[in-house]
Amino acid sequence: KRQGFPEVVYGEGKTKEQILSIIEAIRSNGNDVLVTRISKEKAEHALTEFPEFLYNETAQILSWKDESKVDDSFQGYIAIVCAGTSDLRVAEEAAITAEALGCNVRRFYDVGVAGIHRLLDNIEEIRQATVSVVVAGMEGALPSVVGGLVSHPIIAVPTSIGYGANFNGLSALLTMLNSCASGISVVNIDNGFGGAYNAALINNIAKGARKQ
Amino acid sequence: KRQGFPEVVYGEGKTKEQILSIIEAIRSNGNDVLVTRISKEKAEHALTEFPEFLYNETAQILSWKDESKVDDSFQGYIAIVCAGTSDLRVAEEAAITAEALGCNVRRFYDVGVAGIHRLLDNIEEIRQATVSVVVAGMEGALPSVVGGLVSHPIIAVPTSIGYGANFNGLSALLTMLNSCASGISVVNIDNGFGGAYNAALINNIAKGARKQ
Amino acid sequence: KRQGFPEVVYGEGKTKEQILSIIEAIRSNGNDVLVTRISKEKAEHALTEFPEFLYNETAQILSWKDESKVDDSFQGYIAIVCAGTSDLRVAEEAAITAEALGCNVRRFYDVGVAGIHRLLDNIEEIRQATVSVVVAGMEGALPSVVGGLVSHPIIAVPTSIGYGANFNGLSALLTMLNSCASGISVVNIDNGFGGAYNAALINNIAKGARKQ
Amino acid sequence: KRQGFPEVVYGEGKTKEQILSIIEAIRSNGNDVLVTRISKEKAEHALTEFPEFLYNETAQILSWKDESKVDDSFQGYIAIVCAGTSDLRVAEEAAITAEALGCNVRRFYDVGVAGIHRLLDNIEEIRQATVSVVVAGMEGALPSVVGGLVSHPIIAVPTSIGYGANFNGLSALLTMLNSCASGISVVNIDNGFGGAYNAALINNIAKGARKQ
Amino acid sequence: KRQGFPEVVYGEGKTKEQILSIIEAIRSNGNDVLVTRISKEKAEHALTEFPEFLYNETAQILSWKDESKVDDSFQGYIAIVCAGTSDLRVAEEAAITAEALGCNVRRFYDVGVAGIHRLLDNIEEIRQATVSVVVAGMEGALPSVVGGLVSHPIIAVPTSIGYGANFNGLSALLTMLNSCASGISVVNIDNGFGGAYNAALINNIAKGARKQ
Amino acid sequence: KRQGFPEVVYGEGKTKEQILSIIEAIRSNGNDVLVTRISKEKAEHALTEFPEFLYNETAQILSWKDESKVDDSFQGYIAIVCAGTSDLRVAEEAAITAEALGCNVRRFYDVGVAGIHRLLDNIEEIRQATVSVVVAGMEGALPSVVGGLVSHPIIAVPTSIGYGANFNGLSALLTMLNSCASGISVVNIDNGFGGAYNAALINNIAKGARKQ
Amino acid sequence: KRQGFPEVVYGEGKTKEQILSIIEAIRSNGNDVLVTRISKEKAEHALTEFPEFLYNETAQILSWKDESKVDDSFQGYIAIVCAGTSDLRVAEEAAITAEALGCNVRRFYDVGVAGIHRLLDNIEEIRQATVSVVVAGMEGALPSVVGGLVSHPIIAVPTSIGYGANFNGLSALLTMLNSCASGISVVNIDNGFGGAYNAALINNIAKGARKQ
Amino acid sequence: KRQGFPEVVYGEGKTKEQILSIIEAIRSNGNDVLVTRISKEKAEHALTEFPEFLYNETAQILSWKDESKVDDSFQGYIAIVCAGTSDLRVAEEAAITAEALGCNVRRFYDVGVAGIHRLLDNIEEIRQATVSVVVAGMEGALPSVVGGLVSHPIIAVPTSIGYGANFNGLSALLTMLNSCASGISVVNIDNGFGGAYNAALINNIAKGARKQ
Ligand SMILES: Nc1ncnc2c1ncn2[C@@H]1O[C@H](COP(=O)(O)O)[C@@H](O)[C@H]1O
Ligand SMILES: Nc1ncnc2c1ncn2[C@@H]1O[C@H](COP(=O)(O)O)[C@@H](O)[C@H]1O
Ligand SMILES: Nc1ncnc2c1ncn2[C@@H]1O[C@H](COP(=O)(O)O)[C@@H](O)[C@H]1O
Ligand SMILES: Nc1ncnc2c1ncn2[C@@H]1O[C@H](COP(=O)(O)O)[C@@H](O)[C@H]1O
Ligand SMILES: [Mg+2]
Ligand SMILES: [Mg+2]
Ligand SMILES: [Mg+2]
Ligand SMILES: [Mg+2]
Ligand SMILES: [Mg+2]
Ligand SMILES: [Mg+2]
Ligand SMILES: [Mg+2]
Ligand SMILES: [Mg+2]
Repeated sequence: KRQGFPEVVYGEGKTKEQILSIIEAIRSNGNDVLVTRISKEKAEHALTEFPEFLYNETAQILSWKDESKVDDSFQGYIAIVCAGTSDLRVAEEAAITAEALGCNVRRFYDVGVAGIHRLLDNIEEIRQATVSVVVAGMEGALPSVVGGLVSHPIIAVPTSIGYGANFNGLSALLTMLNSCASGISVVNIDNGFGGAYNAALINNIAKGARKQ
Repeated sequence: KRQGFPEVVYGEGKTKEQILSIIEAIRSNGNDVLVTRISKEKAEHALTEFPEFLYNETAQILSWKDESKVDDSFQGYIAIVCAGTSDLRVAEEAAITAEALGCNVRRFYDVGVAGIHRLLDNIEEIRQATVSVVVAGMEGALPSVVGGLVSHPIIAVPTSIGYGANFNGLSALLTMLNSCASGISVVNIDNGFGGAYNAALINNIAKGARKQ
Repeated sequence: KRQGFPEVVYGEGKTKEQILSIIEAIRSNGNDVLVTRISKEKAEHALTEFPEFLYNETAQILSWKDESKVDDSFQGYIAIVCAGTSDLRVAEEAAITAEALGCNVRRFYDVGVAGIHRLLDNIEEIRQATVSVVVAGMEGALPSVVGGLVSHPIIAVPTSIGYGANFNGLSALLTMLNSCASGISVVNIDNGFGGAYNAALINNIAKGARKQ
Repeated sequence: KRQGFPEVVYGEGKTKEQILSIIEAIRSNGNDVLVTRISKEKAEHALTEFPEFLYNETAQILSWKDESKVDDSFQGYIAIVCAGTSDLRVAEEAAITAEALGCNVRRFYDVGVAGIHRLLDNIEEIRQATVSVVVAGMEGALPSVVGGLVSHPIIAVPTSIGYGANFNGLSALLTMLNSCASGISVVNIDNGFGGAYNAALINNIAKGARKQ
Repeated sequence: KRQGFPEVVYGEGKTKEQILSIIEAIRSNGNDVLVTRISKEKAEHALTEFPEFLYNETAQILSWKDESKVDDSFQGYIAIVCAGTSDLRVAEEAAITAEALGCNVRRFYDVGVAGIHRLLDNIEEIRQATVSVVVAGMEGALPSVVGGLVSHPIIAVPTSIGYGANFNGLSALLTMLNSCASGISVVNIDNGFGGAYNAALINNIAKGARKQ
Repeated sequence: KRQGFPEVVYGEGKTKEQILSIIEAIRSNGNDVLVTRISKEKAEHALTEFPEFLYNETAQILSWKDESKVDDSFQGYIAIVCAGTSDLRVAEEAAITAEALGCNVRRFYDVGVAGIHRLLDNIEEIRQATVSVVVAGMEGALPSVVGGLVSHPIIAVPTSIGYGANFNGLSALLTMLNSCASGISVVNIDNGFGGAYNAALINNIAKGARKQ
Repeated sequence: KRQGFPEVVYGEGKTKEQILSIIEAIRSNGNDVLVTRISKEKAEHALTEFPEFLYNETAQILSWKDESKVDDSFQGYIAIVCAGTSDLRVAEEAAITAEALGCNVRRFYDVGVAGIHRLLDNIEEIRQATVSVVVAGMEGALPSVVGGLVSHPIIAVPTSIGYGANFNGLSALLTMLNSCASGISVVNIDNGFGGAYNAALINNIAKGARKQ
Repeated sequence: KRQGFPEVVYGEGKTKEQILSIIEAIRSNGNDVLVTRISKEKAEHALTEFPEFLYNETAQILSWKDESKVDDSFQGYIAIVCAGTSDLRVAEEAAITAEALGCNVRRFYDVGVAGIHRLLDNIEEIRQATVSVVVAGMEGALPSVVGGLVSHPIIAVPTSIGYGANFNGLSALLTMLNSCASGISVVNIDNGFGGAYNAALINNIAKGARKQ
């Protein structure tokens, strides 16, 4: 609502009936709505009632956006950067969220630190972004490397991907908090939504649209 | 250098001789310079050579800025928010850094969660900021409360102030990472510099000055 | 028994047969009984034998109370405060427990820190309570804010709601232990029962009923 | 101020000049004042200006109370319970605080779990208290044992006394949070002040004095 | 084998076929055998082949002992002490193991710290034991209290019973390691077998039988 | 007192005056006394008054024992085993304590796991001991190896010797608790006293002297 | 590819379809391939298409190697060392990986620290290896003991085998990092693949084959 | 001694007299000697007796090597890689150790992840090394990046450099253990000696000199 953003519902731990009635309430107020962490089965329950909604299974997001409200004149974009298939769920949670919040998004999904040249091949396009959301699991080193190569703000999202001394994402989280590159701030483990939300706020500043 | 920012030197663990010669090297290239985490005694050694520098003892920062480069036309400002005297050192590290990076800064230094009305009395002026740096120790709850009241990005800085189950800032750090308010990202414990650096990058976006 | 309280049975890890025979033993002594952490299925087993018992599924509590023993003359009440649906199970464990221990209870269930105005709208009624039980997950900041607004004792109950750096409630627990507001003490993660028990002891002091 | 309590100043990390000027400000408003965590040297600085103040070196507390405000008619008391000399600093911080907050205090300072009979010899007098503050370091088992023997609320205060797997009070803290006795709530490690503050709030309820 | 003890097999993670063939190998050497952490289903598979074995479901132990080897002349016994039904599995693992290792065992299973009088009622018989195995979960305070009352060695066994800040037995483990009572040593969380094995070695010393 | 043991005073955190007056009190009752964790300077203060006491600087122990009470007829001994000079302080705390408690002690101080042959050269004499106290820092593997070679009880004492991922003894502590050798129980980090105390209780059982 | 190694695919979290198509892509480039952490069911899906592949169920590895590329002239071998059946999965992950990377492997699978003589019986053959991979769970002491007996590099692999204070392999990991034997380096918990990969790199150095 | 290496003495916690007499003992056997973690003052004490020794203050190492034993024919070298001045002490401990163990060393000391181009400028020369020791503090990401660029073994050494959520090197340690690049193994925090020792063993394999 604020910032022209849709209302956001956190789907985890809610029943499909609860989710449906929350959506109905929000829609009856004429607002856009975004449901995160919602399983396919719960989403399908809502889709029977609201067939115009879109469900993205990788991102686990159900969303609806009034296209007439989209602002096409702004060229700036958010770069969503990650190393590969393991971190896709979180990266897509970020990407779909950012799009639902009205941002242009470009995905860079195969640019991990262990193969630095793929990152360097894409760095010019990443550099042109307004802000980057960098998603990484295991050792979580990607934001540090990207941060050394670009001069816009980076929102770092640690993921729980890994095993053993990864301790469910603690390793990646600590790495990102201790980054020796400047211009990096961090959100909770697996919080692709939060990474995108922060990036969208910055994107809005770039649009010059923040006049509430 | 990038973003028109001065070069930053991390003073901790460097001798006064090392710091002085690093400053000389940077100045001889005609660049501005900012030294963080520098004690009074080390700063005085540098000031004998560079009397035009300013030292801020609370912030432990030594800095020099070519005033002719300052851009006075931009009205936007960064809000630096904290609860009181205990967190002052980190808040001032943020404030002085932000100013040295060319930002307008407004300080809100007595607005902790345990006395919510002082925060509410100032909230309109905080709301008008482009971005807030919210500094908090002990339970670190302040960013969550501010985050619920404003709609711009918040950079949260946990401090190590506290004792016992505070575990040197771990408590405040976890609080901020788990915030139920959207639009909050986090930097390392006591990293006022990092909080301000992220805020300055966002401030520059607001200026529309990002054209490197 | 002491304080006129019912005997309390912790249902987790006990079979439905064990629970039933414990209830029979207590009832045969003429005492009231409260079973916490009991699933619907186990409760139904007991209800076939003791149809006068009440089962609350949200709270996972089965209880019986001799209404003739209830003291209606006392106007004081316990405020149970939480942020929303996620913490309901624990909040209701507290609320139903407090009622079973003979207390008047008022529920404030939508007053989280990220929307401080809903809390402020209810604060006068919370302030009139004898004691508050404040339940919060994620960053667990709510007791600090309430604690700054009321001048009666607060029992803070951290919950395990959240993910990632929440570490199963550790984040909320540390927040509450480090609160900068005075008058807050803390019980175990998810221990709604314990929060209510402490509050009920204080409530009894207010009643002037403690004359054992 | 609220509850008729003096204003409380946390002395740690403040200079003697800062403390003195804070005291002057509070006194000039006609309020009572309590300074905790204040070293002998800082206290002596304040005492030259305010010779009517009392300094307790074990408790590290400087306080002043207008005796004319003391309410002598209330017979109830707070029991401060601990195992021995190691925990004395925290126990006395609790005891002196409680007295400064207008409570009657009785000290039980040699009643650890490893010598249960000394506790049993004193249990009747502890039982008569309105509320107990139980202070314990090392394994922190004392609140559980006292909690099983009394039926009033217990505020448990873990201390950092111990070594090795004590982890600076973590051991005692976890013990108290997991107590199998009902009616125990916990404050931060070494927080004797907090323990007493909670107890004083309960004591005030017993006085029937809570009518702000 | 050493100490006249049976060979011990750790059943967890072994298939029923693997367990059966290990038993056959040990028996074919004429040795006694004890299988711990073995489920009912796996035990029944072995019992079809070795019907003379005994399976204890609470303890999850399958064992065989040549009665002709038992030494009836020794009167000394091991006390197995715990607080109640929750810790029964571990306590019985200890008790059955100790018996299988040729020791006399006496069980004291309802003597927790929150009801100290039940412990005091049994203390004389516990005191007469050669050695005690004290099993406790949650806050794990029982060994400290027993240790203060008896003057023989205590093997403390923390259990994972509890929730929240119990952290799967960490709380009880730290409590026992930090005990202020002398004469307590500790084994791994839930390691009833280990507690009994240490006790049996001490029991053998008492028998004067250690002459290998 | 119990077990014919001297009374034990923990010197850390006590002033030299406090220690002296505690000694005087114990001696005036005719009891033996042992002071652990006492610095040379504090010990010398006590020695001026009690010149017949012995101070061991490595062990940091001051003790007095009435030689007429020593029982020379018992041949059994306690083996104190460690890897080298780094762990000497804790090993000697154990050795001197055991001797003060009336036990015969044999020291094996250069038998670490990284040079297994020195251990094997001494293993027969270690095997003959009634009980071993095995002291180890860094990875703490020594008790497991000794435990596999002897069939008497082992009291394992982790030390805080090491750096980095040693985490002040946590590494050695966890190693010992998880030992795959049977017959090992563990005391607190650096608790040489506790290791010896447990061993002395077992030694007394071997003496057949436990008749309190 | 580099070092003549096959390409490695991490199977966990990938569907059987994804795995199959990755294999097809690699094979179509003429490269060898190794899939780790792949369940039997997924492997069978791939085997229908690539019947010449081998699946090892204990190791959970599917692999293919062009035998014509194998270098038979090199006599050096890697020793894979572990204590017993519990650590087999990880040890076999290491062994099969090393073989797939073109190394000779010798297995020493029953040589734990609690039975040191089985290790000593095999030590000469272990000593002749170029490098050892030592796998251990629970207390993880085996690398220290082997490290003291051989003078080639050891790659230590902690496993998550154990319970309680093992904390899912943390205990073994810390043990190995703190080893007092020189020449030991460590990989992640349960990372048999990584242990073998490092050993194979060293093995290649021994072959003199490193000429990329 | 083994591998033709000098004997190594760990200087920390040893007095200057102890160190001198250990050196005398080793030299009298005709062996080379290396003392690590030795302060300047202790080193000077040894140098008065052994003026032919060399002391490196940055590395805190005192060493002596019989030049006649050095093998000049081997061209292979060890790359020691780190990000900058903060990690110099540990990097030099590694470098000086490796040289004392008879290896050729090349230093790459300004190649951190936040400035990836400096690393890329040097990567060819690093690639030619037999083995790399990569030292990094703060987020510890450097080994992952180097590991993706070279195909020889990497020994990663985390340092304790950093603050806040660095937790004294834990952050860098976890990063390295979770590296997504293959061919990386890890030693203890700040253990430059251990990193170099492992590298020297591998270097010896390359020399083909391992024929003990
Ligand atoms: N995936 C997510 N992770 C973290 N927070 C979320 C996520 N999705 C939504 N939220 C937050 O949760 C709030 C909605 O929570 P609820 O009212 O419980 O549905 C939103 O305003 C967001 O701030
Ligand atoms: N107070 C600070 N906290 C964290 N990082 C800092 C701080 N001050 C400076 N830095 C960072 O340290 C870098 C300089 O490090 P150095 O080259 O060691 O002086 C700068 O580029 C900043 O990114
Ligand atoms: N419940 C238990 N907990 C811990 N260790 C056990 C347990 N039961 C048996 N053990 C140990 O495991 C060994 C047998 O392991 P295994 O050869 O894997 O069956 C025995 O010698 C005991 O030392
Ligand atoms: N800086 C170091 N860090 C870790 N271990 C070391 C270090 N220096 C020497 N060592 C080890 O310590 C052993 C010598 O220990 P010590 O006999 O106590 O002097 C050597 O054999 C090395 O294995
Ligand atoms: Mg950058
Ligand atoms: Mg907001
Ligand atoms: Mg309050
Ligand atoms: Mg009670
Ligand atoms: Mg005892
Ligand atoms: Mg043994
Ligand atoms: Mg070796
Ligand atoms: Mg590589």
